[in-house]
Amino acid sequence: MPYFDAASAAPLHPVARQALLAALDEGWADPARLYREGRRARLLLDAAREAAAEAVGCRPDELVFTPSGTRAVHSGVSGALAGRRRVGGRLVVSAVEHSSVLHAGEAHAAAGGTVTEVPVGRTGAVDPAAFAAELGEGTALACLQSANHEVGTEQPVAEVAEACRAAGVPLLVDAAQSLGWGPVPEGWSLLAASAHKWGGPAGVGLLAVRKGVRFAPQGPSDERESGRAPGFENLPAIVAAAASLRAVRAEAAAEGARLRELVDRIRARVPELVPDVEVVGDPVRRLPHLVTFSCLYVDGETLLSELDREGFSVSSGSSCTSSTLTPSHVLRAMGVLSEGNVRVSLPAGTDSADVDRFLAVLPGVVASVRERLGAAPAAAEPEPAQELVVDALGKRCPIPVIELAKVIGSVRVGGTVTVLSDDAAARLDIPAWCEMRGQRYVGETATPQGAPAYVVRRAT
Amino acid sequence: MPYFDAASAAPLHPVARQALLAALDEGWADPARLYREGRRARLLLDAAREAAAEAVGCRPDELVFTPSGTRAVHSGVSGALAGRRRVGGRLVVSAVEHSSVLHAGEAHAAAGGTVTEVPVGRTGAVDPAAFAAELGEGTALACLQSANHEVGTEQPVAEVAEACRAAGVPLLVDAAQSLGWGPVPEGWSLLAASAHKWGGPAGVGLLAVRKGVRFAPQGPSDERESGRAPGFENLPAIVAAAASLRAVRAEAAAEGARLRELVDRIRARVPELVPDVEVVGDPVRRLPHLVTFSCLYVDGETLLSELDREGFSVSSGSSCTSSTLTPSHVLRAMGVLSEGNVRVSLPAGTDSADVDRFLAVLPGVVASVRERLGAAPAAAEPEPAQELVVDALGKRCPIPVIELAKVIGSVRVGGTVTVLSDDAAARLDIPAWCEMRGQRYVGETATPQGAPAYVVRRAT
Repeated sequence: MPYFDAASAAPLHPVARQALLAALDEGWADPARLYREGRRARLLLDAAREAAAEAVGCRPDELVFTPSGTRAVHSGVSGALAGRRRVGGRLVVSAVEHSSVLHAGEAHAAAGGTVTEVPVGRTGAVDPAAFAAELGEGTALACLQSANHEVGTEQPVAEVAEACRAAGVPLLVDAAQSLGWGPVPEGWSLLAASAHKWGGPAGVGLLAVRKGVRFAPQGPSDERESGRAPGFENLPAIVAAAASLRAVRAEAAAEGARLRELVDRIRARVPELVPDVEVVGDPVRRLPHLVTFSCLYVDGETLLSELDREGFSVSSGSSCTSSTLTPSHVLRAMGVLSEGNVRVSLPAGTDSADVDRFLAVLPGVVASVRERLGAAPAAAEPEPAQELVVDALGKRCPIPVIELAKVIGSVRVGGTVTVLSDDAAARLDIPAWCEMRGQRYVGETATPQGAPAYVVRRAT
Repeated sequence: MPYFDAASAAPLHPVARQALLAALDEGWADPARLYREGRRARLLLDAAREAAAEAVGCRPDELVFTPSGTRAVHSGVSGALAGRRRVGGRLVVSAVEHSSVLHAGEAHAAAGGTVTEVPVGRTGAVDPAAFAAELGEGTALACLQSANHEVGTEQPVAEVAEACRAAGVPLLVDAAQSLGWGPVPEGWSLLAASAHKWGGPAGVGLLAVRKGVRFAPQGPSDERESGRAPGFENLPAIVAAAASLRAVRAEAAAEGARLRELVDRIRARVPELVPDVEVVGDPVRRLPHLVTFSCLYVDGETLLSELDREGFSVSSGSSCTSSTLTPSHVLRAMGVLSEGNVRVSLPAGTDSADVDRFLAVLPGVVASVRERLGAAPAAAEPEPAQELVVDALGKRCPIPVIELAKVIGSVRVGGTVTVLSDDAAARLDIPAWCEMRGQRYVGETATPQGAPAYVVRRAT
């Protein structure tokens, strides 16, 4: 049963399991105590910190363990912002950061700070010059992920780090998706990561803060983890996290190359096998194991559930798979199609035959969902109209786009279709559909009642 | 090798280990995902929440899992204070709360709130009437532990909860030390606990907030754990925590009775076996497994290290075992001796023979430490003086008390000894010594240079 959602959580690496079991016996006591059980725990904690620091590329005393990657980001952002409060209250982030960074930004804004989002291009990468241009006066902190969690695109961390250095602004790199594959390019000031993304256990994140970076931990603290992560250390899991990071790193070059080929196969074959599909993200500067594509005229929820029935576990950035009704902020920032979105992220050890089976199954699954939704375009009307209005109010993704596709052949070339839709995904998906199908997106208006209306001119 | 520090961290319960292993295989995926691995994880999480809620005595949707007991307290205190900001900024806590509560109070005070500490009596318990008297206007939250972590004394939770109800003030109960032994008396509004105290794994705390209690989680949040504990759930550890809580509860009555007898044996025998010792805490209204005593003329660090050499792992509230140079705030609040302090907390399953061996070893260990410190009282001078001054400046606990004991026989009855000491422990330990030895503590003055001077009048 192939599990293709390593970017959410990777199955436990055998080394992590082994280390965890050993540390349950040896590392359950309080490492702050001086008796033998405490000393044993302290030795394990120190060794784990050294191993993790080596993998990160920092000094052991620059690194603390946190209860999760999310908490590492929250603590890193709030501590760095507070440490540079006198400089100003500006936080600069890319528009496609992980929600933990954006949530930390929301908390900062709620407390009176400002948050600037640097836009990304269609592949999902920021432009270093555009990022640098935002590092103006009063900038306390900049955040950039090492690679995007939804589309796999690597960010230009080295260039942005250089710009931050020049501007005197510390850079926090969220390395959650990439740390198992290799160290982050030099130049960062703070770094956050999450063990369960590299095959370590849940319950462990890490936060590195370079010496010399002004840092003022927020909230109540205690004497644990240099005052940066309060609460009894989750030691057996920390030991397992460090051991598995070392293990996956030893395998990273070979396994990365192997998975990169499997992903290249998916990137090449999916558009050949499935009509009306858009593969997104940078095809080259990307994580080795992750690929995302979107299928027109399909709703993500049904697609995922059909793939699950076929034995494939994948995730999606489509709005119809989340509770919020808005599509993934990453896809939105990239300006790419969000409907029928599928993210495939291969865990280490993925069998090449499972990828082939996925490619064999996918076309039929997509076709059956499309058929069920009645997405086949209607035959052209004998007398094509000049203007048509499609009322898709109250209908959710992908219905508005399906209705548009059905009638586009019924207006003459040069005529327009206006789609009334109050679904947030339509704002992203109708322009994306136009780009994919060679039609012209005119723009957004509104009905007299205030509902959004999207105007499309038939070009072909 | 007997480990007698269960109040710091209990060794992993076999049920916890078993559940953890099973959940590593079944519960590593993201419980928010809809594919089979995610659904399995969700089922495990839901079942763990139900089991924990049943043990706590609340509804499952009132309980969230946090990364530690400390974080449960921090989130509980900050969320409850923020939820009742309009009522006022007063936080009322007992003077002997766990440091996590006091640290949360410090953060509250730093943000402009006020913190009122309710004093305790000599056994370590608050007086419910005194607690009630502090619940005046503007009180947003009250905190009271179920039982004290250093001396084992149970607090009058039911009476204080009734007073809080009458005053309309929510009560947060820190149940970290007692939850494994049984549910907290009814009437609490919020409850916090920590799995590694009951034999569960590290990395899991729990926070219950009764429906109807105003609660506004602070800091960045996400969709996990009802928005009250951000970050990927530490699921295998959560499953193990819930399973072991259920298991220790099933054994609690029998094991509690057995350990209570062992502790009674220690409470009775230590003062018979060791001269100049004070057993502290309530002898009856107490945790079953915990006892604390203090030995005059002994420094806690040497005592602990000698007991460790004999194979006994215990902890201490003496200042000389911590990095702060101030004795335990609990002992200070109780006004009892802090020097030579030993806390014995027996894990479930402790062998009665190990307790006997501890009692056999302790007198010799204490005597040897006293001998090494030269604590034998000097022979009385032929012509006793009326006044003596002992300069113990720069000397640390227990030297000032040892010097006092050495010379008290050299002043005539009615005469005074003045001890100059800049060690913070002396302020607590010299009056405690007087009480233990039937001498009269006159009070504190200061040298012309400003050093503290403690005046003792010989009474016997």
